[in-house]
Amino acid sequence: MDANTKSPAPLEALVGHFLGMPPVAALRPQILEWRDGLLRLRAPLDANVNDKGCAFGGSTVSLMTIAAWGLVTLELEQANLAAEVYVADSQIRYLKPVFEDIVVEAGFDTAADRAALVDTLARQGRAGARLRARTLLADGGVAATFSGRYVAIGKAGAS
Amino acid sequence: MDANTKSPAPLEALVGHFLGMPPVAALRPQILEWRDGLLRLRAPLDANVNDKGCAFGGSTVSLMTIAAWGLVTLELEQANLAAEVYVADSQIRYLKPVFEDIVVEAGFDTAADRAALVDTLARQGRAGARLRARTLLADGGVAATFSGRYVAIGKAGAS
Repeated sequence: MDANTKSPAPLEALVGHFLGMPPVAALRPQILEWRDGLLRLRAPLDANVNDKGCAFGGSTVSLMTIAAWGLVTLELEQANLAAEVYVADSQIRYLKPVFEDIVVEAGFDTAADRAALVDTLARQGRAGARLRARTLLADGGVAATFSGRYVAIGKAGAS
Repeated sequence: MDANTKSPAPLEALVGHFLGMPPVAALRPQILEWRDGLLRLRAPLDANVNDKGCAFGGSTVSLMTIAAWGLVTLELEQANLAAEVYVADSQIRYLKPVFEDIVVEAGFDTAADRAALVDTLARQGRAGARLRARTLLADGGVAATFSGRYVAIGKAGAS
């Protein structure tokens, strides 16, 4: 967690949220950083290893899926909007094996997507955004890429 | 397991393989059926539940990923070909929430893909195939669809 990250309260809530879901808790995700429309997570290789000694593809996609989901959730909380957030579709490319802890970074596809998410949800009670995520290697390489569309549906009675 | 399924030995090996990978074991997958180029798996909802009481999207995609991976592995074993099998890319569409145990079914994209996999691997030592998978609901609906490209690379010294 570096000095540029935002207030810890929404992050603590997100960690609690992750750990409350058995299949997510099994991935043992940790939040590394949240700032400027980016969320980075790390998960230990030993909890996510496959038969070849590298990261299981399902873990990689799950981590990218929850990183993007978590970013949408944090952005909405920051805007005081209560919503359920769903993933609608995703495309993944596996480029390189990961023989180290899995680090993923999620962001909005465009700055316009980020800006529109909060505005549209506040006005219409429902909004969608496309997010991208990458699995990053310690040597600077990219092990996997992810693009996913998320839908947020405002909770009745929410501000 | 119904009467039309094939010899249990490769299936037992596949189950052992699944359970040997911590992130796959956490999904608690069971094999329901393997026949005619199709593999069906089931996993209990309680091990794969999200914050909304339905199946976590990451579990759904992981199960479809390993069902297709398992099918490729079984087909190659049946042909006495030793290979490492990798997922190269995948596309997922989430259509409906799953409020029951997760059942997924994987198959080859086309019969030609299935036939070419074994032939090409035997001749060239490397082969690719596109597989599809679906998450099936008890009411006959489809909760999610998956399309993934898999690559098999023959092991040195294998038949």
